[in-house]
Amino acid sequence: MTASFHPPQRTLLGPGPSDVPARVLGALARPTIGHLDPLFVDLMDDIKRLLQYAFQTENALTLPISAPGSAGMEACFVNLVAPGDTVIVCQNGVFGGRMRENVERCGATAVMVEDAWGDPVSVDKVGEAFAAHPEASVLAFVHAETSTGARSDAEALCALARQHGALAIVDAVTALAGIPLAVDAWGADAVYSGTQKCLSCVPGISPVTFSERAVERIQARERPAQSWFLDMQLVMGYWGGGSKRAYHHTAPVNALYALHESLVMLQEEGLEAAHARHKRNHEALVAGLEALGLSLVVAPEWRLPQLNAVHIPEGVDDAAVRAALLTDFDLEIGAGLGALAGKAWRIGLMGHSSRERNVYVLLTALAAVLGQQGHSCDAGAAVAAARASYGA
Amino acid sequence: MTASFHPPQRTLLGPGPSDVPARVLGALARPTIGHLDPLFVDLMDDIKRLLQYAFQTENALTLPISAPGSAGMEACFVNLVAPGDTVIVCQNGVFGGRMRENVERCGATAVMVEDAWGDPVSVDKVGEAFAAHPEASVLAFVHAETSTGARSDAEALCALARQHGALAIVDAVTALAGIPLAVDAWGADAVYSGTQKCLSCVPGISPVTFSERAVERIQARERPAQSWFLDMQLVMGYWGGGSKRAYHHTAPVNALYALHESLVMLQEEGLEAAHARHKRNHEALVAGLEALGLSLVVAPEWRLPQLNAVHIPEGVDDAAVRAALLTDFDLEIGAGLGALAGKAWRIGLMGHSSRERNVYVLLTALAAVLGQQGHSCDAGAAVAAARASYGA
Repeated sequence: MTASFHPPQRTLLGPGPSDVPARVLGALARPTIGHLDPLFVDLMDDIKRLLQYAFQTENALTLPISAPGSAGMEACFVNLVAPGDTVIVCQNGVFGGRMRENVERCGATAVMVEDAWGDPVSVDKVGEAFAAHPEASVLAFVHAETSTGARSDAEALCALARQHGALAIVDAVTALAGIPLAVDAWGADAVYSGTQKCLSCVPGISPVTFSERAVERIQARERPAQSWFLDMQLVMGYWGGGSKRAYHHTAPVNALYALHESLVMLQEEGLEAAHARHKRNHEALVAGLEALGLSLVVAPEWRLPQLNAVHIPEGVDDAAVRAALLTDFDLEIGAGLGALAGKAWRIGLMGHSSRERNVYVLLTALAAVLGQQGHSCDAGAAVAAARASYGA
Repeated sequence: MTASFHPPQRTLLGPGPSDVPARVLGALARPTIGHLDPLFVDLMDDIKRLLQYAFQTENALTLPISAPGSAGMEACFVNLVAPGDTVIVCQNGVFGGRMRENVERCGATAVMVEDAWGDPVSVDKVGEAFAAHPEASVLAFVHAETSTGARSDAEALCALARQHGALAIVDAVTALAGIPLAVDAWGADAVYSGTQKCLSCVPGISPVTFSERAVERIQARERPAQSWFLDMQLVMGYWGGGSKRAYHHTAPVNALYALHESLVMLQEEGLEAAHARHKRNHEALVAGLEALGLSLVVAPEWRLPQLNAVHIPEGVDDAAVRAALLTDFDLEIGAGLGALAGKAWRIGLMGHSSRERNVYVLLTALAAVLGQQGHSCDAGAAVAAARASYGA
């Protein structure tokens, strides 16, 4: 017989999921009600409004897709791209490559704009791509690259798309609530995110928002989206509000309780305060890491405060360090992905994980484990540097 | 400011979600760990084995899709159907129609075999469809139609598919754990279900299983599935076990804790005992409903014990009855869908909801509400009939 599963209490300082606050776990476990219950329908309306705040948008089509961020990505592509289209896809990490896969599975052509892993997307190169491909109908890029910790200039890229009559699809999985993201002010047309990063909700749901221009393009499609589950024309009918609500699928009721609670917490803190908190803890972390003799992959201007890619020092065993942090300290950090596999760690301070205590926990635990590996570190100096960064 | 959401404690006797046991809600709220944590990887292996038991299969490709049942449906079609294929689709309720949508979005042709809502799929008509369309490569049908409460003869239909060299795609959303379903013995090739029906887990996840024949067809595809998120070649890499595990998407960690717990509970009770429980409570419910002067839509032989479609008596206000049950008794039953909208209620006794106490609660509450509507009912006689059915 298989026994019940009792996970340990980890501190999650990887690329997501981040630590989920007790308030959110409590909401998650409230009694399940029907997905057509009038009270649940009210909850859905609340979630839409709270997501509009998080995305800084008035887009009517703002809702959580009932599946993880990669389904949110796919929802944007299958609804906005049709066979024969040209899409300019920026790749400076793992997720640009996944966008390309999506474009090609839609029967469209992906024009790739590539930048080094750890660099931001080059706005100039995207301008050149538009000049070479005036037929491009969509520009797709990642605002905050989870695989490298690099931010790109989403505002400039959205402006460039608009200037060339293209829609901008923006991956904001790691960006949302961690750094400024102004969907309406920047003119982003389709933006998807995930619940398990800076919202500090459980993984499994993907908030999305579509501009009026995007909705017009969806409604003008000659043939329906290739996905039934992700067809926004149908999803809209379900989330569309009021008495017009048409059954599409059974909403993940409890996961939406949790998302609601995490968005209520974001509203209570305020977006600007959340951004400032992420920045403050990031700066302290970097000060401490540098005091340990470590360096970051991304140039200061483009660093994401919520995700820090750190060069693995020579002679240090990547997997052994991560395993020791996990087993000795119940502390998770992320491995490098793709071009950074084996070369970098990804240290996340996302959402509820972005707290002063976690900065100290990480610095002291990492110093201890690096010390075991013969890489001598001064934990005291690291903590002192972090404390100084906080102004202590 | 939006306040936290506190749902009431409903008794869920609709078409799903069903009541979620406290054990499962407790598991759901355990601390989130990383989706690549070694302990989580062990949990995934447990879930695969427990799902193999629930499906009665040794299929290696047995796992939970990280999205609701309609995504599980789509996973079966996009992986097994290619443009130009012919698929025989049986429709005797809502979900056959959804299968057709899936087939057509894959660029294939759906040959429809239609039966009346409430009737089982006609095996003879399916035989005729295969005779007229020997090129058909897939047969798709619903084992337990959630919209009508009718069971179809899945064993005979799977045998027919095999006889004609076609794969059988089986919708077992409402069937799994409520009625016998023998994936290997019957030769079903791709079966999808949902967590929120007879497993009594929270909604949002879709268990699926694929036979070796199905896996061969997936591996022989000339071009990849049109969905990246649901591409089983990629999902297999993630769920494939051991050190070969490749990152695909972030698993819905807490939802999988809950699924694990609900499957542990199923294993503890035993499949046969669960089937017997559903049958026993169904028989008592029917005895009580008949004592109230109500009748069922489906003929006795084809009734699903877990979902009972009941004719709405003439002169009774459908919506008013459901609203009164919900507000006065915190009790949810389902409305009719499609051809049965306004004509039938759907009373579910699924999973944890299938309990003797709920039979009495439903009968007494329904009698009270029908009485308010001027449809005089003898609650005492209904309860007595139910008790007699239990042998009390």
